[in-house]
Amino acid sequence: MVNHPEGILAVARAARLASTLLQSVTTEHKAEALLRIRQVLEERRDQVFEANLLDKQHAEPLVAQETLSSSLFARLDLTGGTKYATILTGITDIISLPDPNNRVTLATRLDDGLDLYRVSCPVGVLLTIFEARPEVVVNISCLALKSSNAVILKGGKEATHTNAVLADAIREALGSLPEGNPIPKDAVQIVETREEISALLDLDRYIDLVVPRGSNSLVKFIQNNTRIPVLGHADGLCSIYVDKNADVEKAVRVITDSKTSYPAACNSVETLLLHESLLADPSIVLHRVAASLFERSVHLRCDPTTHAALAHLFPATSPLASLFSVSTPADYDTEFLALTMAVRAVGSVEEAVAHVNEHGSKHTDAIVTEDAAIADYFLTSVDAAGVYLNASTRFADGFRYGFGAEVGVSTNKTHARGPVGLEGLVIYKYRIYGNGHATTDYSGSGPDTRTYLHQTIPEAEYKVGRRG
Amino acid sequence: MVNHPEGILAVARAARLASTLLQSVTTEHKAEALLRIRQVLEERRDQVFEANLLDKQHAEPLVAQETLSSSLFARLDLTGGTKYATILTGITDIISLPDPNNRVTLATRLDDGLDLYRVSCPVGVLLTIFEARPEVVVNISCLALKSSNAVILKGGKEATHTNAVLADAIREALGSLPEGNPIPKDAVQIVETREEISALLDLDRYIDLVVPRGSNSLVKFIQNNTRIPVLGHADGLCSIYVDKNADVEKAVRVITDSKTSYPAACNSVETLLLHESLLADPSIVLHRVAASLFERSVHLRCDPTTHAALAHLFPATSPLASLFSVSTPADYDTEFLALTMAVRAVGSVEEAVAHVNEHGSKHTDAIVTEDAAIADYFLTSVDAAGVYLNASTRFADGFRYGFGAEVGVSTNKTHARGPVGLEGLVIYKYRIYGNGHATTDYSGSGPDTRTYLHQTIPEAEYKVGRRG
Repeated sequence: MVNHPEGILAVARAARLASTLLQSVTTEHKAEALLRIRQVLEERRDQVFEANLLDKQHAEPLVAQETLSSSLFARLDLTGGTKYATILTGITDIISLPDPNNRVTLATRLDDGLDLYRVSCPVGVLLTIFEARPEVVVNISCLALKSSNAVILKGGKEATHTNAVLADAIREALGSLPEGNPIPKDAVQIVETREEISALLDLDRYIDLVVPRGSNSLVKFIQNNTRIPVLGHADGLCSIYVDKNADVEKAVRVITDSKTSYPAACNSVETLLLHESLLADPSIVLHRVAASLFERSVHLRCDPTTHAALAHLFPATSPLASLFSVSTPADYDTEFLALTMAVRAVGSVEEAVAHVNEHGSKHTDAIVTEDAAIADYFLTSVDAAGVYLNASTRFADGFRYGFGAEVGVSTNKTHARGPVGLEGLVIYKYRIYGNGHATTDYSGSGPDTRTYLHQTIPEAEYKVGRRG
Repeated sequence: MVNHPEGILAVARAARLASTLLQSVTTEHKAEALLRIRQVLEERRDQVFEANLLDKQHAEPLVAQETLSSSLFARLDLTGGTKYATILTGITDIISLPDPNNRVTLATRLDDGLDLYRVSCPVGVLLTIFEARPEVVVNISCLALKSSNAVILKGGKEATHTNAVLADAIREALGSLPEGNPIPKDAVQIVETREEISALLDLDRYIDLVVPRGSNSLVKFIQNNTRIPVLGHADGLCSIYVDKNADVEKAVRVITDSKTSYPAACNSVETLLLHESLLADPSIVLHRVAASLFERSVHLRCDPTTHAALAHLFPATSPLASLFSVSTPADYDTEFLALTMAVRAVGSVEEAVAHVNEHGSKHTDAIVTEDAAIADYFLTSVDAAGVYLNASTRFADGFRYGFGAEVGVSTNKTHARGPVGLEGLVIYKYRIYGNGHATTDYSGSGPDTRTYLHQTIPEAEYKVGRRG
């Protein structure tokens, strides 16, 4: 653990050195290290729980003073139910995932004896900055190791003791690997003070990728204060458009699940766009959707058109009339993360796409329709990491996608987008295997000038890696 | 053409709008547009040459005053030899490349009727900032269109007239497409004044990727002044390590080509690392390599060990003694871009890797050796976009790699690395095709709880795109 900004450079250098050693580590050695981490964390369970108790004791008065939210406090706890067991199982799951490195994605014979390969390899050094939720220490450390990256962790101050004990256990595990396993202790490092964040964000020479996990303001601060690429998302403003040819049952199911199954999640829906034809009297779609949402205490903030239609269905005398109100323009740019949703009528799928591209956060957006051409237009034209037809936005999740483990969800337009598994933590390098080849042999127009073959190399002849 | 910073926001918004239209454009419509561009550029040849003459007339006094380098002046010219014809042929080449969009790289059946696809799609809006070399206007516009991206171009002031005529021709071509072709004129826009760069670099809301083409200082300025991802490289500090088991002929060929075939290129070698055993008397490798380089007027800046060995081979009385001198530490961090090279002795491949990872620019590095294990260690542990065995660093080039066209060479550790073709201008989105599916059906442990299938979808059943 490092507590002084002047130590930060040493931490970053040690991470870079560890990263070089990790470049050539085998899948087997990584599995051995991850198993050892699981073992030490199992042995240290009581110590982790003691530290966690201490953190919770410190946090309790903050919750009472309302300087710490009760949801953050809840996420701090590691001792309840099967939480710790789930963390340990997560390590086993990561071990069983395929190694993302050493996959050949391009193999071209440039000439006889001159072969080009594009091979996946680790990004290098990761920096994870996260709030509360101390299991991130274990989860991200294991994902980093599995993908052969070194990682520097910076946790929230509420979980200082828990984070420190978890990181110590991981480092002890790496320090006690059988002889011959080259994974160094410094593959995982933790830093503690807030001042160190700025120092770390400046070290683009040593750190290759920042993975923030936490509030919108934390992520925005990081995005605005570093030249290092940042993988993740600040906002999760998802929208659903219900087309005039929507199936009413599908609309009810998709919207209800998207809004109410976990309103605080980034993949919950925040804006509902309705084709204006659905507002005509009697509006079965509007009635059914609103009734389902009202039943689950969802409050709708509606533009004048949809408000009028709702007021017709649920007059002022109705006990449900308190669950909808007229929206303000800001509502369409708000990630409520609560049982509140902005509603707007649109005249066409084009207008819906324009609204989503202007107000959404490029996370996940859905259309409900039975019209294949309109669906294709929406799915093609909406610029988001996830575009869904007749399915809940809450499917935007690495486990649901079948990735096994998730670093987070990215709304970036480069590198990794959407739910990010191990693949988001690797890049590639080009390898050329030659035999003394020079480029000048291929230039000019003399009789001896060689020409490039540019033939695909059969997998059986690969000099490195495996098809992937 | 826009000349006022207040117009920049309008340019960026128009580009974003064009980008939305480009999302659904077909390969055929793109080919039609590119052909039309070629046709209009052919028709406007005289006008382009006139503008180019004007730019050259303005630039001549700057060359005389030494405020413009003669190499920049040479790159400004479009009228000489087959240059203009080559630009036109380049368009035909881009037409014939495969469309990088709509490729499915993951297709998973999550459940019956619930299918997940990862499909390549355009990044969105590109910003290219470049110096002199006006053919970049044509090249990047065509690569952007081929990959369905909108592009904003900002050229160097030396080529203002040529750039404007070229961009006008391209926009006229897009404005005169047959009815039914949806590609808008604003898919390609050009801005002219330097003040606009800062304004554009701030518009991360509208611009998705910056592709700078130019000097180290231009690229560094851009990297340090925007939150938008930057694709490219500032430095090209490539190294070659000659191992103790190197073949002398291969060493001579690889080093000579890497250093002398085009010294001003980013993929030319700048540092030569020699295993110390190669310096023992009589050093055939050192002698042969040095002789080949001296013959081509390469100046070597050597550490004391290699300097002493060279002084032994080429005593002060030799006419070649003036071609080597003792290096300073800064020489190992210098991209000479000239017939000068830093030379250093190292004790092992580990030391060579440490030097390259510390001083190199992660562009392209090579090893010359006959030892497969040492080669593998070097290729695995050197953290660079290109790592070569017994081949010239100058192979680092999109055309030589067989990519057909090149946006530039990236030393990024995320998104696209190495020579970047059309693939670097696309990202992907996840599409889900459902049937009213809700996530709550898959949570809990009741008898009706569904489980995810996570099966690969056969290509014949794809609802979108093609395997790629």
